[in-house]
Amino acid sequence: MNDRDKKWGELAEIKRELAERDWFPATSGNLAIKVSDKPLTFFVTASGKDKRKQTDEDFIHVDQNGLPLPGQKGKPSAETLLHVEIFKKTKAECSLHVHTVDNNVISELYYEKGSVTFKGQEIMKAFGLWEEDAEITVPIIANHAHIPTLAAEFSNYVKKDYGAVLIRNHGITVWGQTPFAAKKYLEAFEFLFSYHVKLKLFSITNQ
Amino acid sequence: MNDRDKKWGELAEIKRELAERDWFPATSGNLAIKVSDKPLTFFVTASGKDKRKQTDEDFIHVDQNGLPLPGQKGKPSAETLLHVEIFKKTKAECSLHVHTVDNNVISELYYEKGSVTFKGQEIMKAFGLWEEDAEITVPIIANHAHIPTLAAEFSNYVKKDYGAVLIRNHGITVWGQTPFAAKKYLEAFEFLFSYHVKLKLFSITNQ
Amino acid sequence: MNDRDKKWGELAEIKRELAERDWFPATSGNLAIKVSDKPLTFFVTASGKDKRKQTDEDFIHVDQNGLPLPGQKGKPSAETLLHVEIFKKTKAECSLHVHTVDNNVISELYYEKGSVTFKGQEIMKAFGLWEEDAEITVPIIANHAHIPTLAAEFSNYVKKDYGAVLIRNHGITVWGQTPFAAKKYLEAFEFLFSYHVKLKLFSITNQ
Amino acid sequence: MNDRDKKWGELAEIKRELAERDWFPATSGNLAIKVSDKPLTFFVTASGKDKRKQTDEDFIHVDQNGLPLPGQKGKPSAETLLHVEIFKKTKAECSLHVHTVDNNVISELYYEKGSVTFKGQEIMKAFGLWEEDAEITVPIIANHAHIPTLAAEFSNYVKKDYGAVLIRNHGITVWGQTPFAAKKYLEAFEFLFSYHVKLKLFSITNQ
Repeated sequence: MNDRDKKWGELAEIKRELAERDWFPATSGNLAIKVSDKPLTFFVTASGKDKRKQTDEDFIHVDQNGLPLPGQKGKPSAETLLHVEIFKKTKAECSLHVHTVDNNVISELYYEKGSVTFKGQEIMKAFGLWEEDAEITVPIIANHAHIPTLAAEFSNYVKKDYGAVLIRNHGITVWGQTPFAAKKYLEAFEFLFSYHVKLKLFSITNQ
Repeated sequence: MNDRDKKWGELAEIKRELAERDWFPATSGNLAIKVSDKPLTFFVTASGKDKRKQTDEDFIHVDQNGLPLPGQKGKPSAETLLHVEIFKKTKAECSLHVHTVDNNVISELYYEKGSVTFKGQEIMKAFGLWEEDAEITVPIIANHAHIPTLAAEFSNYVKKDYGAVLIRNHGITVWGQTPFAAKKYLEAFEFLFSYHVKLKLFSITNQ
Repeated sequence: MNDRDKKWGELAEIKRELAERDWFPATSGNLAIKVSDKPLTFFVTASGKDKRKQTDEDFIHVDQNGLPLPGQKGKPSAETLLHVEIFKKTKAECSLHVHTVDNNVISELYYEKGSVTFKGQEIMKAFGLWEEDAEITVPIIANHAHIPTLAAEFSNYVKKDYGAVLIRNHGITVWGQTPFAAKKYLEAFEFLFSYHVKLKLFSITNQ
Repeated sequence: MNDRDKKWGELAEIKRELAERDWFPATSGNLAIKVSDKPLTFFVTASGKDKRKQTDEDFIHVDQNGLPLPGQKGKPSAETLLHVEIFKKTKAECSLHVHTVDNNVISELYYEKGSVTFKGQEIMKAFGLWEEDAEITVPIIANHAHIPTLAAEFSNYVKKDYGAVLIRNHGITVWGQTPFAAKKYLEAFEFLFSYHVKLKLFSITNQ
């Protein structure tokens, strides 16, 4: 199996797992994996497909501008430009974007603050944070309908080889050095969001 | 495979998927797919069956009045008349009706208002709404026990080739130009309902 | 396949389905199906087994007093006496008892009232209630540790061929004329409980 | 099959089941099963693996200090020392540690009290508690980043052959005389946590 097929298989496996959790409602969400560095090319999910199905047309091979390589059929996800920012600016190999009820609720509850910060949670060790007073902050940006504008604002927060950005009432984009790491970070964030939403209800009803 | 078998297969696949999410509790819910235009005929789920099972008697071929074609066994869903309204008045090819806890909660919370409106949610792109200030409104009607009365009131809101109506403490009916579109709209609405119910607990929605 | 094997198969299939929903936490819950009328015998789940597994020892054939027939191995569920009351007093063929978080929450919230009543919910058609103003009431009894005492109080509410009783902080027991009907009633009650718990939260947080 | 392979199989089966419930988010959680008594050795999950996958490297055979036996590849879970305390001080055969949203919420809500107590719940029969006024208390300890410190505090609560400890914003560790018992206790605790969190929102618990 060549490297290209291996990358396809890795992304397909992650897509299958996240689809099992129903994290791609209504054809939403998109995923990307880097295929080559020089020139930069990557696979990204095709636009508008039901991600609960596995087909030979699930991913499209695109170039450093997010445009399909010659011979590629189908249309890349409308948000391919966000993945372009990640692969251009960092050494991340994989990038995952999903909509969940809890990440949307968090994005709305903390939008005015501009970010949400977690600390004192064991699950944060998934981010390599082992100190007791460690914190992790996820920026929350506006959901610009104009994708290049969204990508430009998104890009401001793409600084490290792993990270995450919440888009208001839209979803989270998480990236990491490997597909395994990206999925691990995504699971950790979703756990933090679900925990935080549930705990926060007690500050309203019981105080 | 002839067109009739193809339609059966498409509806069976959607039924299987929605059943996996447990969206047909206690034999509730019903689905329909158009088979022919002139004369209008469609498949509709048989009444009172466990939709978690796949059988050769799951769907009944009915005419433009919702009556079984000659030779058809079993009894069409009690709510077949609602699907009749959709297929008669629009070019929709598929119509899905499910009960979920969240669509019931929304239908009760907003019944007095007569509708529920969403805006500023990325998932609304599933409805083809790409503008930042786009809104979508779902009417909420009374749950008349008399089905012809229910169908008549329902019909008032069947104007386009896709759409949705909530029936109070009953469920949602969603229709679309294709089975794929109808399912996508249904998933998008259920996401919106779950999100809205959760956020509303924090009492900070825009309503 | 003889009738005895058929009954075993029907009960095994229901057990498998309910286990998929995780309705038997920590080996809780028990199920029964009538095998013969004269004399009365029925299958009941063996005590203390993991109901997510399917084995040849899942059910025990017991007599009208809930005692194992000659040659039967294993120990019947501690709550077999409740099923005895159902099969002795009614023509029910199947009886299902499960613990869920929502049925436990309802049983606690309404214990002082002695019952919980639902009306105006479409899902109630599963009980054959088609009128708009129909109501259904589920009695809630104390959870006596002494099973004969529990069975005696439970028996007060076993009057029809189908019905349901909630035991406080314990679970629901539902019975019906057929295994299919019993499962349908159970799904309908669990839907009503989940809906009611969720809706009730709004009367606390938003009023 | 020798005893060592049998133990591996038992632990693998429990891991598979708990992973199906998504109780190992972001590679969190760890499991252990005793292999031999004299000298004490046990299998423990390898560090940092995706527990939704089944591989030949999922478990590592370690000695009474939690160090890999000669020839073992991979790195034992960072929290192996907690399992060491259990196997050294009790006759427990199996120990399970998972992160769930509800066990984290409970650990935070009751951290200041130092423990959470349940009573009057039928599911407590899973712990062998059949009396109506029986209580069960789960201690809640601080989540020390320094594992030997955490293990030392944890050890204070390891007194019987079965038991459970909550670590604040981290998760629960449950142990029992058999793998079957440990899993049963874990399911019972998670049911109690989910029930309690939901009921507490209504502010009418007995606390």
